[in-house]
Amino acid sequence: MTHPTTEIPAIRRVDGRAADQIRDVRIERGWSRQAEGSALISFGDTRVLCTASFTPGVPRWLTGKGKGWVTAEYAMLPRATNSRNDRESVKGRIGGRTHEISRLIGRSLRAVVDTKALGENTIVIDCDVLQADGGTRTAAITGAYVALADAIEWGRAKKFIGQKSRVLFDSVSAVSVGIVDGTPLADLAYVEDVRAETDMNIVMTGRGLFVEVQGTAEGAPFDKTELDALLALGESGCAQLRERQLAALS
Amino acid sequence: MTHPTTEIPAIRRVDGRAADQIRDVRIERGWSRQAEGSALISFGDTRVLCTASFTPGVPRWLTGKGKGWVTAEYAMLPRATNSRNDRESVKGRIGGRTHEISRLIGRSLRAVVDTKALGENTIVIDCDVLQADGGTRTAAITGAYVALADAIEWGRAKKFIGQKSRVLFDSVSAVSVGIVDGTPLADLAYVEDVRAETDMNIVMTGRGLFVEVQGTAEGAPFDKTELDALLALGESGCAQLRERQLAALS
Amino acid sequence: MTHPTTEIPAIRRVDGRAADQIRDVRIERGWSRQAEGSALISFGDTRVLCTASFTPGVPRWLTGKGKGWVTAEYAMLPRATNSRNDRESVKGRIGGRTHEISRLIGRSLRAVVDTKALGENTIVIDCDVLQADGGTRTAAITGAYVALADAIEWGRAKKFIGQKSRVLFDSVSAVSVGIVDGTPLADLAYVEDVRAETDMNIVMTGRGLFVEVQGTAEGAPFDKTELDALLALGESGCAQLRERQLAALS
Amino acid sequence: MTHPTTEIPAIRRVDGRAADQIRDVRIERGWSRQAEGSALISFGDTRVLCTASFTPGVPRWLTGKGKGWVTAEYAMLPRATNSRNDRESVKGRIGGRTHEISRLIGRSLRAVVDTKALGENTIVIDCDVLQADGGTRTAAITGAYVALADAIEWGRAKKFIGQKSRVLFDSVSAVSVGIVDGTPLADLAYVEDVRAETDMNIVMTGRGLFVEVQGTAEGAPFDKTELDALLALGESGCAQLRERQLAALS
Amino acid sequence: MTHPTTEIPAIRRVDGRAADQIRDVRIERGWSRQAEGSALISFGDTRVLCTASFTPGVPRWLTGKGKGWVTAEYAMLPRATNSRNDRESVKGRIGGRTHEISRLIGRSLRAVVDTKALGENTIVIDCDVLQADGGTRTAAITGAYVALADAIEWGRAKKFIGQKSRVLFDSVSAVSVGIVDGTPLADLAYVEDVRAETDMNIVMTGRGLFVEVQGTAEGAPFDKTELDALLALGESGCAQLRERQLAALS
Amino acid sequence: MTHPTTEIPAIRRVDGRAADQIRDVRIERGWSRQAEGSALISFGDTRVLCTASFTPGVPRWLTGKGKGWVTAEYAMLPRATNSRNDRESVKGRIGGRTHEISRLIGRSLRAVVDTKALGENTIVIDCDVLQADGGTRTAAITGAYVALADAIEWGRAKKFIGQKSRVLFDSVSAVSVGIVDGTPLADLAYVEDVRAETDMNIVMTGRGLFVEVQGTAEGAPFDKTELDALLALGESGCAQLRERQLAALS
Repeated sequence: MTHPTTEIPAIRRVDGRAADQIRDVRIERGWSRQAEGSALISFGDTRVLCTASFTPGVPRWLTGKGKGWVTAEYAMLPRATNSRNDRESVKGRIGGRTHEISRLIGRSLRAVVDTKALGENTIVIDCDVLQADGGTRTAAITGAYVALADAIEWGRAKKFIGQKSRVLFDSVSAVSVGIVDGTPLADLAYVEDVRAETDMNIVMTGRGLFVEVQGTAEGAPFDKTELDALLALGESGCAQLRERQLAALS
Repeated sequence: MTHPTTEIPAIRRVDGRAADQIRDVRIERGWSRQAEGSALISFGDTRVLCTASFTPGVPRWLTGKGKGWVTAEYAMLPRATNSRNDRESVKGRIGGRTHEISRLIGRSLRAVVDTKALGENTIVIDCDVLQADGGTRTAAITGAYVALADAIEWGRAKKFIGQKSRVLFDSVSAVSVGIVDGTPLADLAYVEDVRAETDMNIVMTGRGLFVEVQGTAEGAPFDKTELDALLALGESGCAQLRERQLAALS
Repeated sequence: MTHPTTEIPAIRRVDGRAADQIRDVRIERGWSRQAEGSALISFGDTRVLCTASFTPGVPRWLTGKGKGWVTAEYAMLPRATNSRNDRESVKGRIGGRTHEISRLIGRSLRAVVDTKALGENTIVIDCDVLQADGGTRTAAITGAYVALADAIEWGRAKKFIGQKSRVLFDSVSAVSVGIVDGTPLADLAYVEDVRAETDMNIVMTGRGLFVEVQGTAEGAPFDKTELDALLALGESGCAQLRERQLAALS
Repeated sequence: MTHPTTEIPAIRRVDGRAADQIRDVRIERGWSRQAEGSALISFGDTRVLCTASFTPGVPRWLTGKGKGWVTAEYAMLPRATNSRNDRESVKGRIGGRTHEISRLIGRSLRAVVDTKALGENTIVIDCDVLQADGGTRTAAITGAYVALADAIEWGRAKKFIGQKSRVLFDSVSAVSVGIVDGTPLADLAYVEDVRAETDMNIVMTGRGLFVEVQGTAEGAPFDKTELDALLALGESGCAQLRERQLAALS
Repeated sequence: MTHPTTEIPAIRRVDGRAADQIRDVRIERGWSRQAEGSALISFGDTRVLCTASFTPGVPRWLTGKGKGWVTAEYAMLPRATNSRNDRESVKGRIGGRTHEISRLIGRSLRAVVDTKALGENTIVIDCDVLQADGGTRTAAITGAYVALADAIEWGRAKKFIGQKSRVLFDSVSAVSVGIVDGTPLADLAYVEDVRAETDMNIVMTGRGLFVEVQGTAEGAPFDKTELDALLALGESGCAQLRERQLAALS
Repeated sequence: MTHPTTEIPAIRRVDGRAADQIRDVRIERGWSRQAEGSALISFGDTRVLCTASFTPGVPRWLTGKGKGWVTAEYAMLPRATNSRNDRESVKGRIGGRTHEISRLIGRSLRAVVDTKALGENTIVIDCDVLQADGGTRTAAITGAYVALADAIEWGRAKKFIGQKSRVLFDSVSAVSVGIVDGTPLADLAYVEDVRAETDMNIVMTGRGLFVEVQGTAEGAPFDKTELDALLALGESGCAQLRERQLAALS
């Protein structure tokens, strides 16, 4: 299969990467002593602490249905970014962007979870961005999967989940792609992201299926050819991230 | 050009439509006596009141840059849906879904606006769902474009905008598409939407370029073939809506 | 009985009405496909969508007392008025005016409801002002009664209410009256309302009894003679509205 | 002139008062050492602390118009009543009743203030109910007038207000009246108020003109004869309160 | 035992007091007709109304543990101080200072309460500052103890508490001390407080044990000698307040 | 000088420390690439990320006074603790504990800052607890000082602060001490903290002066001897932390 990415001309990226190359990814599994599962994940200078909290029982609206619940909350420390943002707790309300990303992470994880196999248990994943340099939501999804996997094993060890229950039937990872100065690029750093004409977040399973495709024309609208190029970059990026997740979990 | 939609097998939709057929669309342009531009748009039983408020001047953060601002707010009346929802004003906070859709509408409109040609003027589009039967965000975008176009003409008549300024360089419309029982369908009604495995909102310009592609696997993740089928349905749906907008504005 | 209104001198009203003449009233009963009862009511250019939501059961504080509950919420779309108002959901709090009117509508409806005959059922009436030109609260009360009546019939048809229970023992309607340039007028339009020295909202039952009398001196305080003139105008206005309600419900 | 109150039959009130008799009224003028004007007013066991804060200058929306501003805020201590209410500061929102009463007090005071004579100065009246036994809003208005009068004199002494400016062109007081067991009564105590079929608050000027008439049928709607009886009781009650205010201010 | 206070040089305090002398303290026990216990306490011009609300039962998190709960809320009327502060209910959130003081009062009272002897009952103490001139939190604690003692006796009389249960095993009072112009002073008035380099609130039991010591260097940090001088002043101040409490409760 | 700590009997602490021994302290200075100053500090398993944000200019209320401003915000990640806490941003309000600690950190830092030497610049210190095991506020103060020192040097390098201005005239660190099972202990871990009868936080400067002393009897009130023992432990703990700060900053 010839990827459209093979047609991408050589360009100078800020950190010397190839157009289809993702940043250095590090995953510190088990970073937290408190959480049932955790991972401190880095996509270059983007650093996200993902913790998974396992609680027996489910929210009231789900009680008695024999199914579990997985949800996520995303937030950013006030000085994760280059200039300080006011805390949402101080403002007294959560912004639209925060809401959107929290919902995206939750949906992405639920796409690979068999909630019946999970049983009536709840796992809340917190993704807190300690340092931001673009791609925080994709790093969060990728790290959250690792924390989730460990929390499920914790639940199994504690007998809240059956020994043979296959709760995770696939894995999930995410990457941002975009068109910068007319060139499709994978895993945008912040300086690339702000210049992107089109910005797309792609969430895929380990088996190569799409969970989410969220593409936005920030500048000029895009055509089908560009869309296909971006999808191909997303596909290869997610596959690479899948490898890092496997390595961390092994 | 042969659309993939020609390959879609005959299925029974709730209202007898073909898989690639959008619902009846009605646009009551100028519904409001108060707003500078307005449209009451219906996609079948979904009814959204779109009003455009034109104000000379821009928010403080944009002052002196010679550019205008277009933004949108989406909301749903408490009994637009089959069972009543609490008002967000009563709850004291706006939900994530509302935030997300407001942002989507604003981005979609800005994708066809030349803010320099608009000058230092602000247009706020309010999209209030009076009755909901699926596709409220896509109806909102489609109707908002009509209200926006009229508000711009109002601004021109009142000399806030130059007589020759081409503020809108394209039009924009949106449609939802999804995979229901394995079949890709256009413009989902509510009963279809809740059964959809995959749900996608596609926003396109009158020239056929993509502004937003937001696809979500609610059930099973989807593959590239399915994604392409959905994109094609979106393309034809948006083109049909473009015709309705032109008719309303003529 | 000679009404004081017979003594009112001929004045020029903005729309040519006589001093004691109410505006054109239209009631689109059953406007909503979703609600158990609904009416889109117009008093001239004032347009209010009233929906009644019927739910078996009552709030916890009323449980087990064999009585039902009727309450109302009033709100205005941001661009219902001549210049746009911020949404209360965005501001995160409901204003005093909104609260006051919601409470007024609820009390007015409860004045004609036999809550024991209603049984342990709850009806919430939402009155959303789509377009405002004075008298929004009185239009809301008048339309809400129609929506309420239909919701009660729905509840009877669904057997939540006994077949012979007489839940509504009277009807209720409301009109605004005021003194403008020294002349008492009925059903003030917005341009009259802002000039009124005294503004009064009168809520009466179909049998001609008072439910609410809320008179406020915006400019000069008023004497007993003026008060009596206003009460008489309110009486005749409510009686006319009663006719429109009967016609809509027949 | 024969008052309808002369026709009221002898009834037993909880504290032995005649039907048209108001409770003992005490006014401790200058209770606060901090405020520019203040009064601790008692209507029987209802005790309200009214403070008037004088500030040179006006809110931004009024700047440069040569007019002053008078506004009021009403609140109740959590244990003013027989059972404790949660604090509105803790709940994070002001209730509809509080809003309504604050607005009523402000309107009532402004009805007797010549804002041009006040000049560009702001007076905020705080009415805090320390102990509640019915009639808190009417006690608040009556006491607020005393605090306001003193704050105006303070402003005159400090030369913020011209020596000859007649800021207060009338006085204002308020009383609650209601129909209890079929009998119209003046100045209802709490135990009477909860049993009242109709409850009315009447605000009048020292010259005997109406500022506000707010009548509500809590139980059965009322007819014109009852309304007239209530208005007459309000008239005599306000006149008695006017005497107490004069005594306190002399 | 020789107190360090004997070494304090003669200084001129604003009201002529000696350095270790507390202000006039008045306690109007039973001020409220509504509350189960109450006291209006004055420390000079600082006046705080303390009410204790007794409710059988405990919050859900404490149910079934055989223990009661005592908590407190502190607030200040908007014009208690020399210039008016916005109401926290209007701002929609409680400030940090208010929170801190409420928690301090609650902890101080719980230090002398045997919650098992109290049984599953809840007492909420409201401390509302009617007039502020420094030391509002210490006056609140001192007055709250009196209100608490009466509420406990009320509970005993009503048989919610056993006749022989010794709920209060000690008393509690509080005083502020500080270093002003190098001199340690007891019970600072507002004008002293704003000039204090160090400000300390000391809460002690009737038996002379420390419950809280909260010292803050507002200006220059302090050494151990100064700290000891402040502690000694606090000790004598609390002992004097203990006498006033005993007198009020006898 | 003989410290009372020399008299403390040998006890078994959870991690084998001596009664007066603080936990392992690690300071990763410059952890953040974004902030002008930063430190990730650990007191055993307690880990707090401190970032200092330097902004030229001051809040409006301080403008034109030739002085700078230093403030702090403290927060805890939801899963920093053993069981997950709801986010304050989600709850829409900041709790009393968070407020209290933020204010404490700000005051502690300001005690060693010469705001005139700082000039009209603002430094905001964010202390986010990534993992909690007791002593989070004292770790925050100790780490915040390091971040603050670096931000000041950044401001000097960027010429916002004069080359010779001595902004920090002392250093500041903090330690918790408490009485557990009758024994005074330094730097309590969480399991010790929950069992402590008395809990005290002591903030001291590098020169050995007290900035804050906050002692609370959680169980039994304490006497002067115990208080002195705690103060001595605090003194030695802060001195040890001073060494760690110096090492990190060298």
